[in-house]
Amino acid sequence: MEYCFGVDVGGTSVKIGLFSTEGILVEKWEIKTRTENGGEKILPDIAGSLEKKRIAHHLTKEQIAGIGLGIPAPVGEEGIVKNTANLGWGYKEVKRELEELTGYTVEVGNDANLAALGEMWLGAGKGQKNMVMVTLGTGVGGGVIVGGHPLVGGHGAGGEIGHICVNETETKPCGCGKLGCLEQYASARGIARLAEKHLKESTLPSCLRGRENSAKSVFDALKKGDKLAEEIAEEFGAYLGGALANVAVVADPSLIVIGGGVSKAGEIVITYIEKYFRKKQFFANSGTRFELASLGNDAGICGAAKLLLQRLGE
Amino acid sequence: MEYCFGVDVGGTSVKIGLFSTEGILVEKWEIKTRTENGGEKILPDIAGSLEKKRIAHHLTKEQIAGIGLGIPAPVGEEGIVKNTANLGWGYKEVKRELEELTGYTVEVGNDANLAALGEMWLGAGKGQKNMVMVTLGTGVGGGVIVGGHPLVGGHGAGGEIGHICVNETETKPCGCGKLGCLEQYASARGIARLAEKHLKESTLPSCLRGRENSAKSVFDALKKGDKLAEEIAEEFGAYLGGALANVAVVADPSLIVIGGGVSKAGEIVITYIEKYFRKKQFFANSGTRFELASLGNDAGICGAAKLLLQRLGE
Repeated sequence: MEYCFGVDVGGTSVKIGLFSTEGILVEKWEIKTRTENGGEKILPDIAGSLEKKRIAHHLTKEQIAGIGLGIPAPVGEEGIVKNTANLGWGYKEVKRELEELTGYTVEVGNDANLAALGEMWLGAGKGQKNMVMVTLGTGVGGGVIVGGHPLVGGHGAGGEIGHICVNETETKPCGCGKLGCLEQYASARGIARLAEKHLKESTLPSCLRGRENSAKSVFDALKKGDKLAEEIAEEFGAYLGGALANVAVVADPSLIVIGGGVSKAGEIVITYIEKYFRKKQFFANSGTRFELASLGNDAGICGAAKLLLQRLGE
Repeated sequence: MEYCFGVDVGGTSVKIGLFSTEGILVEKWEIKTRTENGGEKILPDIAGSLEKKRIAHHLTKEQIAGIGLGIPAPVGEEGIVKNTANLGWGYKEVKRELEELTGYTVEVGNDANLAALGEMWLGAGKGQKNMVMVTLGTGVGGGVIVGGHPLVGGHGAGGEIGHICVNETETKPCGCGKLGCLEQYASARGIARLAEKHLKESTLPSCLRGRENSAKSVFDALKKGDKLAEEIAEEFGAYLGGALANVAVVADPSLIVIGGGVSKAGEIVITYIEKYFRKKQFFANSGTRFELASLGNDAGICGAAKLLLQRLGE
């Protein structure tokens, strides 16, 4: 049992890694996610790709401990999903099906939770046992690590930080149907939306005027000293820092890791989040630190492999 | 190893229970909490009381698995407290000191977390593994159970639900120093304060006028159909139900248990909390149920005993 596979299923591609059980990523690759016909090809495609790679590496079946799999949906320990927004799957017994296709032990988790677990195992959270990770991408994903294990929850929906309500006065609904979710202000899309609002409401001159803006253009302008970009970053920081102070009151993390595309702007993102976190923190969380994620797109496959190894060890 | 002790240290009394390891409460009793001289007598008093009770029950030392201890302060798995508001203790190695005084294994936890664990073991949460408990007393205590274990956190401060910020416009500080904590609106004191505000701002006739009010008088009036009491209960429910919807997004509990003195008003308390929880819930939490706590003041000693048994079994 010297190796295992970590698999991260996304809406357009499936990322796969072959890991040694000590945590060395031997090889990583991608295959296409075929979502047609209710996503019926996704698991067979994965099974086929793993088998080919096993043979290419001259590994016996006995050398493979199993497969960890991350998917973009709530999923409990039994490895059953009820529905997925991007994969075409409705109710699906993912763990059982992939075990039957491959003959290996399979453990399934939510992709954002596994990204957090991956950062804890091999990234910014090495050595931590109580950690929160926020992924600022198209949406806002979240993963909470408690005592070294992902918080899965009663419905497989633990750590859905992006859907904390942070604004009681919002009138436009979030993708989830609620009003005022963190995701509406702190995702890449949310920041672009904040930019639009500030450009409309403020008369400050700004290099952001007269163009299509994104989270990247806002943080680029901020680094050049643009005052309007600063106002946008302050509002982003107030929403996200305030929400994380409330998350910390519940989960009491030693470390909060900020990842996803928005975090590529660097330490300046943490500056604005931490400013408002410190203002709102409970005294017992004053030792909570912030770090940028370090694994990028590999966090998901790392966490998937670690989930498998954790559950095999229990 | 047929028995263990569960101890719940409060500011005025120490509650103690002798349990069989299967979860039968054999006997419970109380001793005074002597907080003078930095609380130096508290642990020796507990050790002496346990020894007397062991002898009275004709038990040998070998029949006692150990002691679980709950204290009203943040405390990590190593059983060290940094400070306590009510016991007189500063930095104190509670686990080590009580182990030296008694010769037994000691495990220490936060009292609100252990109340939640107690309700999971022997009370309203029997059979649950993912649960949140809110204790509405003088303050608002909270405990989060994840996968059957209390969420302790990186600084021993997990589950401090009372200090979630629920009102950005509050001007009066909470006991913790922050502004707008849930505790300022949903504790017994908080409800009395809401009553005062509504009596001042409203012209509705009410049986609450011209008297000193408490959470009890408000819920008593509500049961008699008092319209002003209803307005107060709606505001209480909006703050607490909204906060719990955000907690559920992070912790994804199957069950939320409502305990503490305020919960003695009965199911009507849940009605007002659940109304706003349902309005604000994330879709994945629609299966989360509410129950009243069933162990009353015994929850703490039950949870303390269970903490010991859990950690011995690990």
